[in-house]
Amino acid sequence: MAIPFRVGQALDVHAFVSSPRGDGSSEQETPSSPPMMLACLEWPGEPALVGHSDGDVAAHALCDALLGAAGLGDMGTNFGTDRPEWAGASGEVFLGEVVARLMCAGWVPVNATVQVIGNRPRMAQRLEEASARMSGIVGAAVNVSATTTDGLGFTGRGEGLAAQATVLIARVPDGPGTPRP
Amino acid sequence: MAIPFRVGQALDVHAFVSSPRGDGSSEQETPSSPPMMLACLEWPGEPALVGHSDGDVAAHALCDALLGAAGLGDMGTNFGTDRPEWAGASGEVFLGEVVARLMCAGWVPVNATVQVIGNRPRMAQRLEEASARMSGIVGAAVNVSATTTDGLGFTGRGEGLAAQATVLIARVPDGPGTPRP
Amino acid sequence: MAIPFRVGQALDVHAFVSSPRGDGSSEQETPSSPPMMLACLEWPGEPALVGHSDGDVAAHALCDALLGAAGLGDMGTNFGTDRPEWAGASGEVFLGEVVARLMCAGWVPVNATVQVIGNRPRMAQRLEEASARMSGIVGAAVNVSATTTDGLGFTGRGEGLAAQATVLIARVPDGPGTPRP
Ligand SMILES: [Zn+2]
Ligand SMILES: [Zn+2]
Ligand SMILES: [Zn+2]
Repeated sequence: MAIPFRVGQALDVHAFVSSPRGDGSSEQETPSSPPMMLACLEWPGEPALVGHSDGDVAAHALCDALLGAAGLGDMGTNFGTDRPEWAGASGEVFLGEVVARLMCAGWVPVNATVQVIGNRPRMAQRLEEASARMSGIVGAAVNVSATTTDGLGFTGRGEGLAAQATVLIARVPDGPGTPRP
Repeated sequence: MAIPFRVGQALDVHAFVSSPRGDGSSEQETPSSPPMMLACLEWPGEPALVGHSDGDVAAHALCDALLGAAGLGDMGTNFGTDRPEWAGASGEVFLGEVVARLMCAGWVPVNATVQVIGNRPRMAQRLEEASARMSGIVGAAVNVSATTTDGLGFTGRGEGLAAQATVLIARVPDGPGTPRP
Repeated sequence: MAIPFRVGQALDVHAFVSSPRGDGSSEQETPSSPPMMLACLEWPGEPALVGHSDGDVAAHALCDALLGAAGLGDMGTNFGTDRPEWAGASGEVFLGEVVARLMCAGWVPVNATVQVIGNRPRMAQRLEEASARMSGIVGAAVNVSATTTDGLGFTGRGEGLAAQATVLIARVPDGPGTPRP
């Protein structure tokens, strides 16, 4: 059967540059630290995330979920440490490139959910903005949500942030991956 | 392309009211503590879960996965702390309301999987009952399963319970979200 | 509506037989310990995973995701401790049996993503091999990827390995689950 759909899912985790206090209190970082980037938005006053690039767990989880759905590997195999041109790239840049590679392979995103897991930032007031931003980059509905782990585990202790993404993609009609008569 | 399907996924975590011993031994809670609610079933003799409402991680994860798939936000944006009428609502009430909101938006659940992650309760004997219960509320097949984390992490230490839900939803034919001629 | 698709998702976790040092350094196990089995491949020099069977978290997560999608329960209800004939079975054997049970129920796998979460083994060089191996067993595209948790949590401390799988399955045309005229 030539089923025209695929699903994909991925987790990403990054540590905070300097862990905030476990109670999630908003001790300000030193002015020299870069701003946190999360869900392709800037979060002023929040501690940055450690990592290759800007540490945007939401963008990275979505990239890996999309690549996996299309059978294209993951961020490591696509943008790994042996490809220095991708060092320091933003979540938006990675996400745009991933969608381009998907479409080259004959797939298009249908929708995605991205859940950010951690104590901070408090995202409630900006979830619609984050969803709109990521939807615009991906060209399909992306629903960004947020949850805590009730004080448990490394996210509950405020040591880092996690994000999970799940996607549905569809075969492009007459796309490069479609056999032509 | 007007693809009539969407996927969604979410995690929920709650701490036990009083953490059981890390080995998962079944020390009884005091009679005054409320019963654990999980997968819309009552679990006598098990410690209750902390949280807004009844702390039913399985029901909450499924609610968030459904809302996310339909692009309707999450439980926080739908039933948040500024909406006191939802304080203390049961997992079943939330789930029924979420499905109603989905259908109002032109979507219907197709199926879902819900995996409960933790040491207790021992769910093996009641997984079919839990699946039947949640399927009845949602109006679609919900498969409830359970796993442990082999003694690792906060679930392995018996500090709390986690649940993950993944859903497929479909556009209602001639539903409110469908353009009519 | 008779929607011919279902999704499923599952997590599996196993502890290492003897935890490696938290920094992920490659201290050799004693020669008597069995090799690690992961994603249906042998990983020489890596510590084995504890568990019923060979502890292959990638294979087990995929089994549970497939069973859940088809509404067939989980590995516990299908191969539990009261069924000694399955004790010690390999991930490949479980996966083959799960796919057979799916097809008996009228379903066929469409695609899957499996993400291994942990410090070791370093999988980057063998992800394509792992994807090809699992795809061959399942008879559909399986994309195997790998991530770390940036030194956080039990996977970051090197205490064990986790894996998550997400699947799409489709109704077999004229399969046993399809009503016939
Ligand atoms: Zn990342
Ligand atoms: Zn909850
Ligand atoms: Zn296992």
